[in-house]
Amino acid sequence: MTTASDMMQKVRETCPLVHHITNYVTVNDCANMCICAGGSPVMTDAEKDVPDMVKLASAVVLNIGTLNDRTVDSMLLAGRTANSLGIPVILDPVGVGATPYRTETTWRILDEVKVSVIKGNHGEISVLAGSGGKVRGVDSVPGSNDVASAAKGLAQRTGAIVAATGPVDYVSDGSTVITLRNGSEYMGTVSGTGCMLSSVVGVYVGACGASLESVASAVSVFTVASEVAVREGKVFGPGSFKTKLFDSLYSLKAEDVDTLLKRD
Amino acid sequence: MTTASDMMQKVRETCPLVHHITNYVTVNDCANMCICAGGSPVMTDAEKDVPDMVKLASAVVLNIGTLNDRTVDSMLLAGRTANSLGIPVILDPVGVGATPYRTETTWRILDEVKVSVIKGNHGEISVLAGSGGKVRGVDSVPGSNDVASAAKGLAQRTGAIVAATGPVDYVSDGSTVITLRNGSEYMGTVSGTGCMLSSVVGVYVGACGASLESVASAVSVFTVASEVAVREGKVFGPGSFKTKLFDSLYSLKAEDVDTLLKRD
Amino acid sequence: MTTASDMMQKVRETCPLVHHITNYVTVNDCANMCICAGGSPVMTDAEKDVPDMVKLASAVVLNIGTLNDRTVDSMLLAGRTANSLGIPVILDPVGVGATPYRTETTWRILDEVKVSVIKGNHGEISVLAGSGGKVRGVDSVPGSNDVASAAKGLAQRTGAIVAATGPVDYVSDGSTVITLRNGSEYMGTVSGTGCMLSSVVGVYVGACGASLESVASAVSVFTVASEVAVREGKVFGPGSFKTKLFDSLYSLKAEDVDTLLKRD
Repeated sequence: MTTASDMMQKVRETCPLVHHITNYVTVNDCANMCICAGGSPVMTDAEKDVPDMVKLASAVVLNIGTLNDRTVDSMLLAGRTANSLGIPVILDPVGVGATPYRTETTWRILDEVKVSVIKGNHGEISVLAGSGGKVRGVDSVPGSNDVASAAKGLAQRTGAIVAATGPVDYVSDGSTVITLRNGSEYMGTVSGTGCMLSSVVGVYVGACGASLESVASAVSVFTVASEVAVREGKVFGPGSFKTKLFDSLYSLKAEDVDTLLKRD
Repeated sequence: MTTASDMMQKVRETCPLVHHITNYVTVNDCANMCICAGGSPVMTDAEKDVPDMVKLASAVVLNIGTLNDRTVDSMLLAGRTANSLGIPVILDPVGVGATPYRTETTWRILDEVKVSVIKGNHGEISVLAGSGGKVRGVDSVPGSNDVASAAKGLAQRTGAIVAATGPVDYVSDGSTVITLRNGSEYMGTVSGTGCMLSSVVGVYVGACGASLESVASAVSVFTVASEVAVREGKVFGPGSFKTKLFDSLYSLKAEDVDTLLKRD
Repeated sequence: MTTASDMMQKVRETCPLVHHITNYVTVNDCANMCICAGGSPVMTDAEKDVPDMVKLASAVVLNIGTLNDRTVDSMLLAGRTANSLGIPVILDPVGVGATPYRTETTWRILDEVKVSVIKGNHGEISVLAGSGGKVRGVDSVPGSNDVASAAKGLAQRTGAIVAATGPVDYVSDGSTVITLRNGSEYMGTVSGTGCMLSSVVGVYVGACGASLESVASAVSVFTVASEVAVREGKVFGPGSFKTKLFDSLYSLKAEDVDTLLKRD
């Protein structure tokens, strides 16, 4: 048994409630992926509702994909409430570096909220680490070099576990860097697979606590599931891939995680 | 012919326009399920647009899944406009009982708007009936006992037809309780099947009027369709189930409704 | 080689960034269809974010499906910013004619922003052309006559390329009208196929410039893809059709475009 398959078992027994303040583009896929990972999703962003819902949650996911003044305030409120209760916060800084508003908002959240996990693509993590990554719209521009160091540096600077995802995924707590090499090429053809992964991270952190291993396990089950989705040759494009990704994460077997895991 | 298959025929001939003010998590699935049920969906929530759109509609669905001050005001406006025109209003009190804001908003809507149908899960209906149900996030906590009585009591108190959905569904007008026992176990693995059902109720109420039978028929066609979706063994998880649920509701045959219906 | 398959090749090499301010009902499908067409989608609607994101984009899509005061202001800002930079603007006037707010907003956008392409259904284009079309909710009411003339007249009046979509599609620049006769009947069973097409138009205009041919090519690849989706007999309803539509647009072959294209 790997840690990833062990944690998968624990997550499914726990079914943690994961509160999201996220974007309106990929929110439905996040909710469904949260269920498929073994969690229970809730999304609410009104200031009158957020503190009471955060209290019920095992983890809070903040995603700035379609940020505005109202929801940024709600994210800060959710983050502070979670902090006061010891509930872990996961931040997905979608498109940071593409516009000043996204960059300022990300740093404002990191300043005002203790974030347990930062999950971004190679470009976003490199931008935050100050190591010269590029972001175009909400997508990473290939070619950011030494993403592993960027993840490690950002973890040191912020105290958060940092996951930098892309063709290769890196997870760091500031001292160790775990390198993960799973994932189907179809992942890049579906909008919001990064957002969905943040929800899966929320589920794993909610059930197992915020740690290098819980974040790495979330990344692994999601990317291994993407390989299982295409394994039988019934994926013909982004539509059938997405459908099968839900199916395969929901039905993922410990033996598949253990056999397919590529980690160094 | 059962009443359900009879009404299904009428709905498909009528194609009622159903106006929604609903949440941004499951709204796309609601729109598509509305079409698959035989209706025409429209979603708009600006106060400048709502009264004019309500006038065109055959039913109005209010769903508080991602409520905020602006959309709550719009829901009240939509409800009052519908009342003044005799257009039936369906309320889905998503997550009522989980937070004070949801509970207060639900009662505010019930106070200021004449609601024709309340559709909630076992926990939500039990909470509203004051019979001790529990809601976690937006999901019912299993174990609410005597949901049938809760549905009946809430119907008496509010004058609305009440549908309480879960492993077994109850529909009551305050005197009769219809018990419906259809539905695939996959229903609980997809986010928003409850919201989608509210849209289907909107379609049936829009075409056939608000009655015990129209609400029960909507529940029946949706849950029977979920059984037809899995019948051929091509469902492998939540993703393929959702895809097939759209297909099967759209193509549902009267003979399948009549043969598979479990009602007492 | 037809112009459509030629442009498809160019689009896939370019991968233009398309900025959307669109509705929350069909936004996820728009993002994914944008990717499947060969583009890169971004959605953001905060006034603080819009001008900076528009600067990065190759085209801007404005869709009034779930308009409100805040997002209308953002649309005007996005449009003016795009105009100042020479970035083409595509307008999808969803539901224009159904309510005064939609009609006023559409004309306000057309007055304050130079729009390169207007894409609507038969009813919407006929309403805008003043030729007596009808819109029910957000759907066209069949029977609008002489849509070709309406498209041509609206193009003359506004200076935009106009695409009027339905069972037959018309694209006009005010002098020529191209008639396109592709498309599966399942297109009308899925919510938002019109919105998705606007995103595809954004991709083609972003890569190839705003012209009669780039808009006609976008319409053609999308509608031909819908025919390819059903060709193998594996579509059983709206759910499986939508899944396959993503697959088939993503994998569309030049030879299929060239062979299946029905244009006069």
